[in-house]
Amino acid sequence: MANPQIIKTQVGIVGGGPAGLMLSHLLAKSGIENIVVEKRDHETIRHTHRAGILEAGSVKMLTDTDVNGRVLTEGMEHEGIDLRFNGESHRLNFPELVGATVTLYAQNEVFVDLAAARERDGGDVRYSVTDTEILDMTTDTPKIRFTDAEGNPFEVHCDILVGADGSQGICKWAIPQEHRTDNFIEYPFAWFGILTEAPKSSDELIYANSPHGFALISQRSDTVQRMYFQADPNEDASKWTEDQIWDELQKRVDGPDGFQLKRGPIFEQMILKFRSYVCEPMRYGNLFLAGDAGHTVPPTGAKGLNLAFADVKVLFEAIDSYYANKSKDLLDGYSETALRRVWKAQNFSYWMTNMLHTRKDANPFETKRALGELQTVVGSRYGQQYLAESYTGWPHS
Amino acid sequence: MANPQIIKTQVGIVGGGPAGLMLSHLLAKSGIENIVVEKRDHETIRHTHRAGILEAGSVKMLTDTDVNGRVLTEGMEHEGIDLRFNGESHRLNFPELVGATVTLYAQNEVFVDLAAARERDGGDVRYSVTDTEILDMTTDTPKIRFTDAEGNPFEVHCDILVGADGSQGICKWAIPQEHRTDNFIEYPFAWFGILTEAPKSSDELIYANSPHGFALISQRSDTVQRMYFQADPNEDASKWTEDQIWDELQKRVDGPDGFQLKRGPIFEQMILKFRSYVCEPMRYGNLFLAGDAGHTVPPTGAKGLNLAFADVKVLFEAIDSYYANKSKDLLDGYSETALRRVWKAQNFSYWMTNMLHTRKDANPFETKRALGELQTVVGSRYGQQYLAESYTGWPHS
Repeated sequence: MANPQIIKTQVGIVGGGPAGLMLSHLLAKSGIENIVVEKRDHETIRHTHRAGILEAGSVKMLTDTDVNGRVLTEGMEHEGIDLRFNGESHRLNFPELVGATVTLYAQNEVFVDLAAARERDGGDVRYSVTDTEILDMTTDTPKIRFTDAEGNPFEVHCDILVGADGSQGICKWAIPQEHRTDNFIEYPFAWFGILTEAPKSSDELIYANSPHGFALISQRSDTVQRMYFQADPNEDASKWTEDQIWDELQKRVDGPDGFQLKRGPIFEQMILKFRSYVCEPMRYGNLFLAGDAGHTVPPTGAKGLNLAFADVKVLFEAIDSYYANKSKDLLDGYSETALRRVWKAQNFSYWMTNMLHTRKDANPFETKRALGELQTVVGSRYGQQYLAESYTGWPHS
Repeated sequence: MANPQIIKTQVGIVGGGPAGLMLSHLLAKSGIENIVVEKRDHETIRHTHRAGILEAGSVKMLTDTDVNGRVLTEGMEHEGIDLRFNGESHRLNFPELVGATVTLYAQNEVFVDLAAARERDGGDVRYSVTDTEILDMTTDTPKIRFTDAEGNPFEVHCDILVGADGSQGICKWAIPQEHRTDNFIEYPFAWFGILTEAPKSSDELIYANSPHGFALISQRSDTVQRMYFQADPNEDASKWTEDQIWDELQKRVDGPDGFQLKRGPIFEQMILKFRSYVCEPMRYGNLFLAGDAGHTVPPTGAKGLNLAFADVKVLFEAIDSYYANKSKDLLDGYSETALRRVWKAQNFSYWMTNMLHTRKDANPFETKRALGELQTVVGSRYGQQYLAESYTGWPHS
């Protein structure tokens, strides 16, 4: 096998999803050389459907840094959500409560925008790489080895290595076990998710707690909708007929107000398992973790991508300050700063998950307590504000 | 055995603690005849030490109904609490956050005041009764049988029967099992409580989350203090020396600010087990449950007595309306109205308990998530307001 070709750069980024590309974009704008390596091909990521709620701070990171304005023209600004329980909807009006909004804009569209911006600006992003390895993390020259799409081996020599390779990535596992703590919990349920060709059933997201379990009525466009309902993690999604799925969804939003879902053909149906995970610290030597590579949240709080962007913002500022002032202070503080928001987001996601889902073997006390919690939240302006502030996003640090 | 002497009255109340006496007092002021039977003697209740935080609404029920003004002169108005975690105190300023305060006034003092008011106003309160039984709850003449302190048997014939006989009482168990649902959860910890002759360590309550477990630093007067720390439910309180107790308490409030408890001789030390319980509905025929007889909350949220007073307020208005208008509408709505607040209080107590305590076998994720939750609450004005509003008490319905 040929000796690998050496690439020298300042920052080596493993992972070309939204986190890796956003960081690459910000660094390039600040004149900091970087390279991104990504094992998937462009088309696969482009078609990986994920969460779609962006906090105002995440939208700002796209619009204020010259990515492009598509999030503003194609995204749908949402001014609230509905919390539905006991068959009644309770709307939280975000602008009125906390002066903020969120934007529905699918994660793969964020990828498309960032990938286009990197291409436009001459960024070095290698898709479809194989055999990625990271090494020498605790030295001044950490390295990434990989084989490119054409089969040529490379070795990236950099000052700073960033692991932005998602929850299934290699970077966090490259931290020796005695130097990291894996914090995680599993949930005894999953989401059954569908994409359907149907008109919107509601203009904004509906989070429903029902005796039959949780449901989330979401949107994608005027003609395509995304919906989820709580299911067994071992459920076989392919066995469900369209009628069964619609009946199950409808049961969970039924109420005296007669709310009816607008049905249509279902063209994607899958089980989304979820768990909460945090790697502590999010740094090892000159390796820094960002986004899902460092933490996973259940989707209930819509925090995954937003948390990744928040990491990227803190990490970019730390790297920028390192090159500008030759000071490692911000880099040394990165993990602690990032983790402060991560644990808040973990708590919010856990809170929303537990308040809205029903465990099959739940003590009835728990179920009624959760309804008492929902009553307390919607019955109090402070409760509504507390939830709305977390949902629309705490200020970036 | 002699035939029981019949007493005819409008409302028969089982239980002469604060809930039963407050109801008796309100009814009497409204010209509604009633009798209270209580198995304990006056002196025992007078010396039963319990929680001591009164919501503003509870204070108002004492002052606005001509009980007496002792709560204002002897009680200590508290304008906040300290949430202490990671060795740092975070004060919630209640007036500034939600325009309310709470009052530290021990539950046995509330009893003393109410008992004195009933005596002053010629109320019929029988202490030290035995063999109490309730019967005919679903008829128009429910009855209480009891034997008085002198050994004479009585039978109370009334229109409305109230079970205010606490968590260990007989009334809720008199509801046939198929007509009630017992909702409850147990907690894997208890409180080790002490009374100490010492100056105040702090002017207001400190709720401390620490790696060693929860502690509550409370007060009783200028010279006597009450403190608690999380302990095993099977702990033998008598085996602990004073030094061990003080060291354990101190560990849980240690921090870089050097906060030190002021020590003194300990003259009472006991284990308080706790659980959450709700009886649904809180009514069976013409029997109505109020206070601890219908529900128990863990002490963390300081809601026990306040919830009892809130029940009493709703129940008094319903009984009053029944005699004034011969309408049973409010009585028919009592259970639902009362339970709405009960479940909110259960949730608040559960929330405070889980956020502040540490389970011995806890997944570290849980411990860190709880710290993330505390950070979210104290880091947000809305979070502080949400907690402060629940703590100082939602408006009475």
